[in-house]
Amino acid sequence: MQALWLENNQLQLRHDIPIPQPPPGEALVRVVQAGICNTDLELIRGYYPYKGILGHEFVGVVEQGPTELQGQRVVGEINAVCGQCHYCQRGQSTHCENRTVLGIANRHGAFADYLSLPIENLHRVPDNLPTDLATFTEPVAAALEIQQQVMVSSTERVLVVGDGKLGQLVAQTLALTGCDLFVVGRHRHKLANLSARGINVGFADAIAKRAFDIAVECTGNPAGFELARRALRPRGILVLKSTYAGQLTFDASSLVVDEITLIGSRCGPFAPALELLASGRVDVEPLIQGHYPLREGLKAVEQAKSKGVLKVLLDMSDQ
Amino acid sequence: MQALWLENNQLQLRHDIPIPQPPPGEALVRVVQAGICNTDLELIRGYYPYKGILGHEFVGVVEQGPTELQGQRVVGEINAVCGQCHYCQRGQSTHCENRTVLGIANRHGAFADYLSLPIENLHRVPDNLPTDLATFTEPVAAALEIQQQVMVSSTERVLVVGDGKLGQLVAQTLALTGCDLFVVGRHRHKLANLSARGINVGFADAIAKRAFDIAVECTGNPAGFELARRALRPRGILVLKSTYAGQLTFDASSLVVDEITLIGSRCGPFAPALELLASGRVDVEPLIQGHYPLREGLKAVEQAKSKGVLKVLLDMSDQ
Repeated sequence: MQALWLENNQLQLRHDIPIPQPPPGEALVRVVQAGICNTDLELIRGYYPYKGILGHEFVGVVEQGPTELQGQRVVGEINAVCGQCHYCQRGQSTHCENRTVLGIANRHGAFADYLSLPIENLHRVPDNLPTDLATFTEPVAAALEIQQQVMVSSTERVLVVGDGKLGQLVAQTLALTGCDLFVVGRHRHKLANLSARGINVGFADAIAKRAFDIAVECTGNPAGFELARRALRPRGILVLKSTYAGQLTFDASSLVVDEITLIGSRCGPFAPALELLASGRVDVEPLIQGHYPLREGLKAVEQAKSKGVLKVLLDMSDQ
Repeated sequence: MQALWLENNQLQLRHDIPIPQPPPGEALVRVVQAGICNTDLELIRGYYPYKGILGHEFVGVVEQGPTELQGQRVVGEINAVCGQCHYCQRGQSTHCENRTVLGIANRHGAFADYLSLPIENLHRVPDNLPTDLATFTEPVAAALEIQQQVMVSSTERVLVVGDGKLGQLVAQTLALTGCDLFVVGRHRHKLANLSARGINVGFADAIAKRAFDIAVECTGNPAGFELARRALRPRGILVLKSTYAGQLTFDASSLVVDEITLIGSRCGPFAPALELLASGRVDVEPLIQGHYPLREGLKAVEQAKSKGVLKVLLDMSDQ
């Protein structure tokens, strides 16, 4: 089969990869579409070691698996877990000690004609949800993880730092809580997506210091972290939603004096993400800025790397 | 009156300071005893700008104030607050926007014959609680702040990093929760104080990685932070209890991947601190390593700065 293969920071289109043979408990999924995420770009840059097929956001059709899923469109949770360890036993299986992660750690990913995932990871895509939108299930779930970790109420002032792919989804999901939301970004056209949905947006100079109860950092750069930190009130909560290249430096004493809470946030729940996409309460259509067949995957990745570009999709069925 | 005066990183014993004239709502307190804290040593080192009388841990006797407090031994909360601002109105008055802080920010401190504090800040010392022990009320309250911020249950594995003044009090207060506690330190004799109370202790090499649910950093140095971070499980909570000189650098990506929570922790509740000291459930006697009259205050501070020394006390009544 065809696949985008990462090895030694080099991404290549290969045609010689065997179709996966799902072990017991897993399903063979024909990939229909996949989305390129910043984590993919970071893996290519070599921030984490990974060798294999890239990609973890996808919609596919089950070719081998339980009867009720045969031929169905599905999305899939990316952590394949053991079910036995400390975390799995406590309902924190995204932290499974023995996990493999689709296209990220020890498991071939979705930028390929086929992938294999545990059956329990798969979720049927509602019939009324177009594939283009369902491909966003994984990042919308990641955005929803914030609300699993922090109680966000309508009386709270919440700042989202970053107007990129992740910031857009975080902002849309937080807006649903009715909180007093503001999104700070650097790109007029990206912020316009959000203001069209009634979300307050602006540039960094609009941010008052010590004014927000919660700040969500979605840029992955130290300037974004600094902006989020400065905007927080004492006893405020700073959610780190992006991974960072290298180390982050901060004033720990001010964190102690202001009793700030910092929370790292990763994968979230798929079922509500699918619901929000199917009902249109989260609208990802304006984020899509490119469609490429898998054979033009390298070009797709180049576009995804370009400044100001939001989501680029790979269509596997488009040969 | 006599006082230890800090100015331009120079601490001096002065005899020319006028006795404070309490404004309406404040009481004049004759200081009986004061404790030297690491924050005092940091202020002397110039980590924060402060000019005036140092000191914030004390026991005193009310000389001018409401009848019911006249002649009574008291301890005092260190934040003098406005009662009107966002934080005061929400019961978070230790974060009052207009606060002054005894011996720390814009308010003369306790290393003097007299001090002035708002009446509402004062707490009577129970008759059965000796002054030597009551002087620890402020740091014991600070240790208890952890339990105001984090639910510590008996099933949790908790690590305290640091066997100094703060680590000792944090460990003793956490032990009362019945949690599975371990204290890591560098000094055999300090750790012995804790193991004598049935607390498990050891050196850094005894700490398993990713084994603790909660870690409390009480060293104020980057190596302590690093040790606490490494010891934490995914979804673990790292409480920062010490202020740090300068910046702290950490791997933000691992914080995101492991969904770690970092919490800064400062001042805590006085009433339970007094109760724990009066009942002997927290025993601070072994921490006392020096008594000096105020006129030998500079010598006392030198002893407090020495490696391995725990609490040094200033006795104002001892002339």
